[in-house]
Amino acid sequence: MVLPSERRRPTIRDVAEVAGVSHGTVSRVINGGRWVSEASRIAVEAAIQATGYTVSHAARALATGRANSVAFLLTEPQHLLFADPTFALLLRGATEALAARDMTLVLLIAEHPSQYANIERYVRAGHVDGVLLISSHESNPLLAALTSAGVPTVCSGVPLGDRAHVPTVSVDEEASARAMTRHLLNRGYERIAIITGPDDTPGGRYRLVGFRDEMGERFDSALVEQDVYSSDAGEAAMTRLLQRAPDIDAVFAASDVMAVGAIAALRKAGRRVPDDVAVAGFDDSGLAATTDPPLTTMRQPWTEISRRMVEVLLEVIDGGAGESIVLPTTLVPRASA
Amino acid sequence: MVLPSERRRPTIRDVAEVAGVSHGTVSRVINGGRWVSEASRIAVEAAIQATGYTVSHAARALATGRANSVAFLLTEPQHLLFADPTFALLLRGATEALAARDMTLVLLIAEHPSQYANIERYVRAGHVDGVLLISSHESNPLLAALTSAGVPTVCSGVPLGDRAHVPTVSVDEEASARAMTRHLLNRGYERIAIITGPDDTPGGRYRLVGFRDEMGERFDSALVEQDVYSSDAGEAAMTRLLQRAPDIDAVFAASDVMAVGAIAALRKAGRRVPDDVAVAGFDDSGLAATTDPPLTTMRQPWTEISRRMVEVLLEVIDGGAGESIVLPTTLVPRASA
Repeated sequence: MVLPSERRRPTIRDVAEVAGVSHGTVSRVINGGRWVSEASRIAVEAAIQATGYTVSHAARALATGRANSVAFLLTEPQHLLFADPTFALLLRGATEALAARDMTLVLLIAEHPSQYANIERYVRAGHVDGVLLISSHESNPLLAALTSAGVPTVCSGVPLGDRAHVPTVSVDEEASARAMTRHLLNRGYERIAIITGPDDTPGGRYRLVGFRDEMGERFDSALVEQDVYSSDAGEAAMTRLLQRAPDIDAVFAASDVMAVGAIAALRKAGRRVPDDVAVAGFDDSGLAATTDPPLTTMRQPWTEISRRMVEVLLEVIDGGAGESIVLPTTLVPRASA
Repeated sequence: MVLPSERRRPTIRDVAEVAGVSHGTVSRVINGGRWVSEASRIAVEAAIQATGYTVSHAARALATGRANSVAFLLTEPQHLLFADPTFALLLRGATEALAARDMTLVLLIAEHPSQYANIERYVRAGHVDGVLLISSHESNPLLAALTSAGVPTVCSGVPLGDRAHVPTVSVDEEASARAMTRHLLNRGYERIAIITGPDDTPGGRYRLVGFRDEMGERFDSALVEQDVYSSDAGEAAMTRLLQRAPDIDAVFAASDVMAVGAIAALRKAGRRVPDDVAVAGFDDSGLAATTDPPLTTMRQPWTEISRRMVEVLLEVIDGGAGESIVLPTTLVPRASA
């Protein structure tokens, strides 16, 4: 066991060497202790004592020139930040996780590709130590720019395209969609439509896969609509579905915001929810409990998602590889389906 | 006329010297040309040509080590960013004004005083060139910290306490409140109550002053309620007013969000709006047009406010003093009063 020189401030690598574990293991112990054996945890804690390593991010920022801040980078139109409550929930979780570590959250909105260059320059200049990339879309050019510049980055959503190289924190889209479809089938609905999101988003692609699998022989491609995650889009999609298939008895919308639009379209068409057509959503974004009728939905663990994104990002900032995490969802039955 | 050395990149001060005007005048010409005489504008434009000065903020950031970014610093609870549409409108205006100058907007949320130290450290470290301080409250300790550290800062709202030393962009609170009160009196309402904001906010203090002045002898201190700018607070205040003075025939709420709460309280008490009690708001925040009934309110020029805040801040960053600006409001009559 080689103790580091006393002249130099002990680093996380010194702790790893003294503990005889990997750098990533030390980082996991420091950042909450998940997926660490009890023996490793004890060894790391002893090594922290022996080396005199301190976890203070503020002190480390001074010593290393780090900004002691992390960007919450939203690559969606700004109005979505306010229209879709899921972003507020993610922002809340990330802010709290960073505040607990004495770090600052910096919210950056890259609304148009024309803003990408400025954002990229800002991040590469070291004004933040890493990026929580909040984007549902595949092949985001900003992601490629950040990773090629070596900026520690963690994404929300499952790996698609470039994301294969970047740690992500996501939910099991396919299994979640299967569970909701099974719920609707179990309640006796037969002509079940789906309004899914864009094909270049994990929610758009994999929720449709899960739905199709679970529907099996009942699957009817005429009952599929695909559009963007907005209330207006949900309303328009529901209107198209009703025109094409007036016998629909249930619809599964790939987001609560879309489900709100679908309910509005059904009302305008004189259909009662759920008596004539049942409506299920996805997200449990806070909106779901207050709709009329309250929305049956799949709850995504928003606070947990953003907390884990922060943990993984701090691992990557500390030199770890950062592992992708898949979290479970929960079916929340309410009055709408 | 002394032309600057060709070796050195021309600065805004060189332009001022060549044009024979003040630094602030040059800055105003560059940033939009308000309050500049035609003669000065022509002199400045000629001097820009003569010196070869370029307005590119991006190039200047590289040359000067500036971050080429500005903080939109919200010192309110995070949920207000989503609950009160006025913040979204200000954010939108500031984002657009900065994007037009190739600069990045960085959104910082200082929710609890415990986060002030981190935010202050972040700003003082030069990660932004200046701060748009979005806070309605007087004697904000963060403002004192920023100004004493010499961080270019512009506030929304009128000067109160420490703000006397900092440029602000605001509306004429008193005159606006008088105009709305006059509107209610002209429509024949006599027992007019006011729900105003906290006394340490310009809206809370000066809207009450304007209301009292305009009511004159009709002013009744029993018809005044003061609370925070939230829907719940508006509802509770309206309930208290009705208990104290069941003969109220109109209420002027100091924000649209409060007015929404007041309408809810009136509904619960079995009063029709506006047939039994008229309700007026303040802000025209986007909420006002969609309430039931649509809300009569004072429109604040949100986009103009944030655009001017950006202009003044850029003046200050460039070494100018920055002048405070007071903008007019517009009465928007709708169905509620």
